[in-house]
Amino acid sequence: MHDVTTAWQSLTERVQELRDLAGIEGILEWDQHVWMPAPGGAYRGRQKALTSRLRHEGIVDPQVGDWLGTLAEDPATVADPVRAAALRNIRRERDRAVKLPARLVEAQAEAASAGFAAWVDAREADDFSRFAGPLGRILELAREEAACLGPVAHPYDALVDRFDPGLDSASLSALFTPLAARLTELLDRIRQAPPLAAHPVAVPVDAQRRIHARVVAALGFDMERGRLDEAHHPFTMGIGPRDVRLTTRYNPEDLMAGLLGTVHETGHGMYEQGLPEEQVGTTVDEPASTGVHESQSRFWENVIGRSRPFLAWLAPIVREESGIDMDVEAVFRSANRVAPSFIRVEADEVTYNLHIALRFQLEHALLGGELRVEDLPGAWQERSQALLGIRPERAADGVLQDVHWGAGLIGYFPSYTLGNLYAALLTRRIEAELPELWEQVATGTFAPTLEWLRSHVHRQGHLLDGPQLIEELAPGQDPVDALMAHLEGRHGKLHGIS
Amino acid sequence: MHDVTTAWQSLTERVQELRDLAGIEGILEWDQHVWMPAPGGAYRGRQKALTSRLRHEGIVDPQVGDWLGTLAEDPATVADPVRAAALRNIRRERDRAVKLPARLVEAQAEAASAGFAAWVDAREADDFSRFAGPLGRILELAREEAACLGPVAHPYDALVDRFDPGLDSASLSALFTPLAARLTELLDRIRQAPPLAAHPVAVPVDAQRRIHARVVAALGFDMERGRLDEAHHPFTMGIGPRDVRLTTRYNPEDLMAGLLGTVHETGHGMYEQGLPEEQVGTTVDEPASTGVHESQSRFWENVIGRSRPFLAWLAPIVREESGIDMDVEAVFRSANRVAPSFIRVEADEVTYNLHIALRFQLEHALLGGELRVEDLPGAWQERSQALLGIRPERAADGVLQDVHWGAGLIGYFPSYTLGNLYAALLTRRIEAELPELWEQVATGTFAPTLEWLRSHVHRQGHLLDGPQLIEELAPGQDPVDALMAHLEGRHGKLHGIS
Repeated sequence: MHDVTTAWQSLTERVQELRDLAGIEGILEWDQHVWMPAPGGAYRGRQKALTSRLRHEGIVDPQVGDWLGTLAEDPATVADPVRAAALRNIRRERDRAVKLPARLVEAQAEAASAGFAAWVDAREADDFSRFAGPLGRILELAREEAACLGPVAHPYDALVDRFDPGLDSASLSALFTPLAARLTELLDRIRQAPPLAAHPVAVPVDAQRRIHARVVAALGFDMERGRLDEAHHPFTMGIGPRDVRLTTRYNPEDLMAGLLGTVHETGHGMYEQGLPEEQVGTTVDEPASTGVHESQSRFWENVIGRSRPFLAWLAPIVREESGIDMDVEAVFRSANRVAPSFIRVEADEVTYNLHIALRFQLEHALLGGELRVEDLPGAWQERSQALLGIRPERAADGVLQDVHWGAGLIGYFPSYTLGNLYAALLTRRIEAELPELWEQVATGTFAPTLEWLRSHVHRQGHLLDGPQLIEELAPGQDPVDALMAHLEGRHGKLHGIS
Repeated sequence: MHDVTTAWQSLTERVQELRDLAGIEGILEWDQHVWMPAPGGAYRGRQKALTSRLRHEGIVDPQVGDWLGTLAEDPATVADPVRAAALRNIRRERDRAVKLPARLVEAQAEAASAGFAAWVDAREADDFSRFAGPLGRILELAREEAACLGPVAHPYDALVDRFDPGLDSASLSALFTPLAARLTELLDRIRQAPPLAAHPVAVPVDAQRRIHARVVAALGFDMERGRLDEAHHPFTMGIGPRDVRLTTRYNPEDLMAGLLGTVHETGHGMYEQGLPEEQVGTTVDEPASTGVHESQSRFWENVIGRSRPFLAWLAPIVREESGIDMDVEAVFRSANRVAPSFIRVEADEVTYNLHIALRFQLEHALLGGELRVEDLPGAWQERSQALLGIRPERAADGVLQDVHWGAGLIGYFPSYTLGNLYAALLTRRIEAELPELWEQVATGTFAPTLEWLRSHVHRQGHLLDGPQLIEELAPGQDPVDALMAHLEGRHGKLHGIS
């Protein structure tokens, strides 16, 4: 018994230390994107490499293996849900770290650094050939990583597991193939209807700042425990529930361009603020998965933020802060225009997941060796034609548009669509359990919805892995059906095709 | 030879890692004072304790002792100025770290944390008794620290050495006693003349921001490698020469209140930007001492910033940015008013060093046990009467005004006066070598002065300890004479008493 007590205490102390290191890395990352003078990057790279090495050393330490071994043999520990989850999460992270040689991890960091620089350069020059070599190196190392992580049916399986544990190529294909087919079919029908008109709302940036701040606070983000700043590529950084930092951009020509981004980041931020802080040291205070994180941002951005009731609530705030009268119906239609486009981050709700399907297919083929890097630009154009019906001629509008692959993130893209699928399942339950949802949204009463997410998702932390958590919340339900029902419900009516 | 090569490489790698950790701590500290949501302090404390522990472990590591031992026996290393300085600096830091038991260091961190909280509380309540206990504890631990650091004539000697190596109670008294006497005499003469009039220049904060930014850039601070932000207690944080962050405050009622602070921080910041970055890993890329750092801020703030030529150059900038016509002569007289006051940070150039003399005398007596904590408030009033001719009735205006003691900083105050003394010596040399100094200042041509400081001070880094560096730059000169000559030159004329 004494051994078990000591092992648990030592293990949780170590995990809390690793969490503190992650918090330090979070501040270094946030500062780099928000405030750091560019030349400071020379130090920042070394600082992040140092904390990353310290985290690695902290988890591969043989003592951690001993503590896990002692605890795994203790029936009381295994029977306790929090402790069992801790063992599962820590064991998984440690196994991954132990299996990857330090040499490989360093080579990947270098390849990602070189890949990012090459990507920036290639995109500016609109010249894929400048990126081909570094991308090839990244893929080679990713295959090596997959091989180290153990025997799997396809190297992709080992990589995607890191973002949403338990998922693999087969389960993703089982979601993405029918989803892409049904989206294409919906898109075809929408394209036959008259397109909705764009309706940008020009608002001075000063007034936008006040509007964003009011929206963020009204949704339920606690600004006492967070911040809202500006960044070129908006993101959210959670140092812990008491220190969560949103970033956004303001477009003076169109309020909604930035505001929906802010609502998206607020979804991420409220998840971080709602995590069970008291579980620090157990890993249960962490998010369930990347896909679940994305479900929170997508729910607030798409389901709530693009809804008519939300915009009806927003209009008086815009008037109060800027004196501008916003035409709710015109903005609602504008925010829900559907049209194939080249750029993923500007895509509408319907075509967005086709952009992800394209990337999933291509990165899967690249990793499996079925597609060669030099054939990637052509394959991108071909897949774009097939899925979206349009063909980007410029590499910058196609294969070079996203930072992910250059930064070494292979297997990350599916999380975005998982987020949309999970959000659709959560929406169904919320609509069933909160029948006044839309009346409440129209009056800016978001607390009941947030409280539902708090108790069912946020406070669960990483007790269950993402896919299991969602299965518990929507047992036996088809996420593709749920997402299509949401999209057909909204866009069928809007485009007059239902 | 191979041993020596390996030892030098290992040592410099370790020192660079410790510098990276210090850079991380710098960002954590800067963020805490500039942006962090207050509740995030709970994580920040743990994060800083972690990096502090890692730095301690990195320097006390027996390997570092072995490398130093190997190198100390190598004649070529000892004959090389940079390597010899590295051995001296690293050895000193390691000896100090090794001598202090981890238990003591932790107790001091806790006492400083409790002391700071008690100080905030006591100052708000204007009640010294709330601070007496925690201050007693801090002094007790400081005496223990001094005892660990080895036999010295007075415990104060061991503590002050940390800020300006080589100085002790005797050498400080030899400076401070005649300085205080001569300042008191000057102050008496000034008080017999009619006082100069205050002349605040109210400027809207937006215009002040532009004015500060132009001044900072004109002085020579490279904004591409730095920032200027706001903080309640302004400070400068150097992560390295490529990332130096100034902070300031804007007072809408008086431009000069904040601007002189910005000029002060710019002096610190230009020193950080001018350190010899290529010496990273040797400690020679670090500042020579706290006193030398302070000499850079004081030179720019007092010698340059409070001069008539500087204000003459400033006036058209103020007009361009705010439309306000600044009366140069009135502002010059206002910026150089001399009058005894209670608060050190608001003191003029003449009385400032009397405030420091007071603190030096009291902390020296407290540490030596000649003054008891409960007698401190009375002793403060008595010393204030003797040195400044005024007696603060409220503790908040006297003994409770500074954060230093509560934060555990015993022996730091002398650095401020050392900075003024060093600045006066540097001014003499600069005036001798740059005869056009004041004509240049009047036209905003600061580059020759900065370049002089760059080559004589900044690029020297920590090759010499602060006092030695200054002795080399002004051999055999009396710093008290130099400072008094500056003060009598300026204030004698201004007050019509020369």
